[in-house]
Amino acid sequence: MALTGTRKWLNEVIFGTDTPAGKNFDVILIWTILVSVVLVLLASVESWWVRYGDIFFVLEWFFTALFTVEYFARIYCAKDRRSYIFSFYGVVDFLAILPSYLALIFTGASYLMVIRLLRVLRIFRILKLVRYLRDANLLVRSLWQARRRILVFYSCVLVLCIIFGSVMFVVEGPKHGFTSIPKSVYWTIVTITTVGFGDITPQTPLGQAIASMTMLIGYSIIAVPTGIVTAELAHELRKDKQLARCHNCGRAGHDSDSEYCKHCGYKLEDFDLLAEE
Amino acid sequence: MALTGTRKWLNEVIFGTDTPAGKNFDVILIWTILVSVVLVLLASVESWWVRYGDIFFVLEWFFTALFTVEYFARIYCAKDRRSYIFSFYGVVDFLAILPSYLALIFTGASYLMVIRLLRVLRIFRILKLVRYLRDANLLVRSLWQARRRILVFYSCVLVLCIIFGSVMFVVEGPKHGFTSIPKSVYWTIVTITTVGFGDITPQTPLGQAIASMTMLIGYSIIAVPTGIVTAELAHELRKDKQLARCHNCGRAGHDSDSEYCKHCGYKLEDFDLLAEE
Amino acid sequence: MALTGTRKWLNEVIFGTDTPAGKNFDVILIWTILVSVVLVLLASVESWWVRYGDIFFVLEWFFTALFTVEYFARIYCAKDRRSYIFSFYGVVDFLAILPSYLALIFTGASYLMVIRLLRVLRIFRILKLVRYLRDANLLVRSLWQARRRILVFYSCVLVLCIIFGSVMFVVEGPKHGFTSIPKSVYWTIVTITTVGFGDITPQTPLGQAIASMTMLIGYSIIAVPTGIVTAELAHELRKDKQLARCHNCGRAGHDSDSEYCKHCGYKLEDFDLLAEE
Amino acid sequence: MALTGTRKWLNEVIFGTDTPAGKNFDVILIWTILVSVVLVLLASVESWWVRYGDIFFVLEWFFTALFTVEYFARIYCAKDRRSYIFSFYGVVDFLAILPSYLALIFTGASYLMVIRLLRVLRIFRILKLVRYLRDANLLVRSLWQARRRILVFYSCVLVLCIIFGSVMFVVEGPKHGFTSIPKSVYWTIVTITTVGFGDITPQTPLGQAIASMTMLIGYSIIAVPTGIVTAELAHELRKDKQLARCHNCGRAGHDSDSEYCKHCGYKLEDFDLLAEE
Repeated sequence: MALTGTRKWLNEVIFGTDTPAGKNFDVILIWTILVSVVLVLLASVESWWVRYGDIFFVLEWFFTALFTVEYFARIYCAKDRRSYIFSFYGVVDFLAILPSYLALIFTGASYLMVIRLLRVLRIFRILKLVRYLRDANLLVRSLWQARRRILVFYSCVLVLCIIFGSVMFVVEGPKHGFTSIPKSVYWTIVTITTVGFGDITPQTPLGQAIASMTMLIGYSIIAVPTGIVTAELAHELRKDKQLARCHNCGRAGHDSDSEYCKHCGYKLEDFDLLAEE
Repeated sequence: MALTGTRKWLNEVIFGTDTPAGKNFDVILIWTILVSVVLVLLASVESWWVRYGDIFFVLEWFFTALFTVEYFARIYCAKDRRSYIFSFYGVVDFLAILPSYLALIFTGASYLMVIRLLRVLRIFRILKLVRYLRDANLLVRSLWQARRRILVFYSCVLVLCIIFGSVMFVVEGPKHGFTSIPKSVYWTIVTITTVGFGDITPQTPLGQAIASMTMLIGYSIIAVPTGIVTAELAHELRKDKQLARCHNCGRAGHDSDSEYCKHCGYKLEDFDLLAEE
Repeated sequence: MALTGTRKWLNEVIFGTDTPAGKNFDVILIWTILVSVVLVLLASVESWWVRYGDIFFVLEWFFTALFTVEYFARIYCAKDRRSYIFSFYGVVDFLAILPSYLALIFTGASYLMVIRLLRVLRIFRILKLVRYLRDANLLVRSLWQARRRILVFYSCVLVLCIIFGSVMFVVEGPKHGFTSIPKSVYWTIVTITTVGFGDITPQTPLGQAIASMTMLIGYSIIAVPTGIVTAELAHELRKDKQLARCHNCGRAGHDSDSEYCKHCGYKLEDFDLLAEE
Repeated sequence: MALTGTRKWLNEVIFGTDTPAGKNFDVILIWTILVSVVLVLLASVESWWVRYGDIFFVLEWFFTALFTVEYFARIYCAKDRRSYIFSFYGVVDFLAILPSYLALIFTGASYLMVIRLLRVLRIFRILKLVRYLRDANLLVRSLWQARRRILVFYSCVLVLCIIFGSVMFVVEGPKHGFTSIPKSVYWTIVTITTVGFGDITPQTPLGQAIASMTMLIGYSIIAVPTGIVTAELAHELRKDKQLARCHNCGRAGHDSDSEYCKHCGYKLEDFDLLAEE
């Protein structure tokens, strides 16, 4: 079903990016989302809330009203309403306005407010439409290609953490902070990922020796995911260059930031390049 | 000696993966192992043990009984019983049930219980039979190819740690927590691997300057194992693609997640690809 | 406008690097800058300031006078005075001497003194003229090529940090140090980058489980920027070798530390190699 | 001058590795060095020194005597005595025995004892003669090729640390632990290398925001040395394979762990492969 009249125009503005109005709408929306997210972040600081609570309250309802209008406008002008509402971004749009209304009914449910931070995910929808997409695609494709290798790697890391964690539990014991095996496993993860909070630390010489081994292993296996991702990324980068072709001379091999064909000087268009993927 | 009757059927179910019964057995076994491992982890939390001790006790004996039956079934239906019992997984299977029985004889030997966590290793046997194997093989082969380079690297790191550790012992001394050279070496390992617990920290300006050098060196040499593994992994990835051939047209160069031959559209089978390694 | 007389000679000494006088001037300037920067660093240590305040004061004015003379000499002999003054390095040169004079007028404005550390940036101007430039160019070009991928990567990391941060705020709450969402986001950044100060740490089992996830994700995504930069760097390295040509036989493919052409033995000059970029 | 008689035989045993006696001497020496290093490490633990001081004392003199005899034997049988004494390893050999004798004269100079740990460097001399050398060479050559890029990188990191350190000094100030600019720079190095001791942490919101930026930058630039080393290592690995040729058929391209030529099955000898580098 082709849209007509106002609905068609609204669809072009809200969902589209080809018209100037559509582009402006996207830019305004990104800024609105960013400001509202910063507001939610700042409102959680108690001293700010005490002092500027009223302003936060008014602004929050202003943004909620805005996003509510936008949500219903999206439903109104969507090509297929049902599929929009139950799509990933449709649910995110809904969750972004829900908490404010729920807070009217259930007072004190301030933790619900956190859900509003999901608004930040809405930025990705808009970014999907712009130039950055191609690089994001490349990253996602590389990670997706490497997913099984990464899973195998994480299984091994987890088994290592369980084994080292239980050894540390036996060696150090509850009196040095290793109160249970799950906590020892938590400590091992903190250590093997080289985070090292220092809230729990081994005290016995034997415990420190085992901790040293854990660290050196962690230091070494940090190389494995890097190796996996690098190998895939290099492969995808090569593929990317072979796929992106100039529309004038048909030759490929362009750098990801080329704006003109290096063989014939023809202006390269992003969407042309994207279309081939 | 070819197996017959019940023994053959049991062998197919327990060791095999080709029949539906064999696949179901593997899936159930993985879940049983995971649940029993989680139980051991939770039972080590004192507050849970105090409250749900009886349930943990009953469940533990339930799983021990299950694994005992499985262990003897494996011995019964193994093609070569002797080699199974003394194989790596045979010993792990035995160690996974031993502690519960030992706890009957030696009361209070609660540390023995930790050995049961070796059950987690049993998961690898089952995973060996599935699709993930090929990627695990790639990782293992890369690490194995790089083993000597990694050994050389670790020797240098250890010598660096001993030298920096003894310098810090002289500079900072016992009154700032560097009570002995082994402890200083431990601190150096904590620092050079960028873990940084913060339980021991340099206090003198000279000590902090040397610590800064240690960190910058650590930051830099973190690149070496990464470089080694990446270089090997890229090499193995290329080799992998050359080895895996389609059974229909015989051509190679397939991606690791291809399901159909990209030259002739023939369905690729995992075990065919594996067979060539 | 071609320079003549004293101005031309001064220009060659101060801005140039081809004459022996120009080279000596650069070497002396680098050392003067380094010494003056070390002085500013040491003068900020209170105990040193109390003891050697007078010496610091005298030396500071000595260096300020030197840099003032140099600044005006640069203006005097610059080819285009206006463009020098408003160039990046012109402003840095000005800011490097400004604070000392301002301190005469506004007493107690000791924080202004920190601006003098911008002098350290002046070293880059001189380095621009020497051999190291080519390698710096390679690094900068690689990072520049990868800028969009890096931006996409950082956006994802920030969104991840906001989401994990707000979850930790809900789970751990103010009584375990997670007093506001911005602080929780700060904690998440500390954790996901594997820095792990340990000033705020999760105390509840659920919080520790989520923290473990955060660390493992951080451990994994550390691979992504590495992969991006490595892939670009390898690409640039290859390009670099193809670009640098011998002036005698015209053939390319030289290593970055080659001093003689490997095809005809002709001495390679850095500036020749540079010229082609 | 060709050595003869006892001197020649001693030289073969002590410096050589081709005869069985030479090989045995190396193996015994490695173990003697390792044991004496472990002894020095353990002797620095006060509680052990109090309890086993006598044993440590006796053993220390036993090893000192041994190494003294070895040192003079090396001088006796060296081809060029002067150049041995003033070579790197000659000095290390001398420093390894010096402290024990000095301790006789200057009592209480226990810090001198630390110098004995330089013995650990002697292991490298012996390792130089064995199989691992080739891989060590590869690593060293890669790092050497990348030395200028690494220097450029470190200069940038240090400038970054000075600038961020002085900003943090202004923002946080002495009352939050940032007592001087050098200490703030130390903190910045701790943070940018993702070590994160946590002995000094930012307390103000602005300080935490700048700290977050520092961490994200550190997280990102960790990729640069990795990229540099990986790119060089991959290049060296390729070169290595092209250089190592079979002595029978002359063809290259062997893996670094190949023991037989993959083209003609001829046994590859390490020293043949090494000779070509």
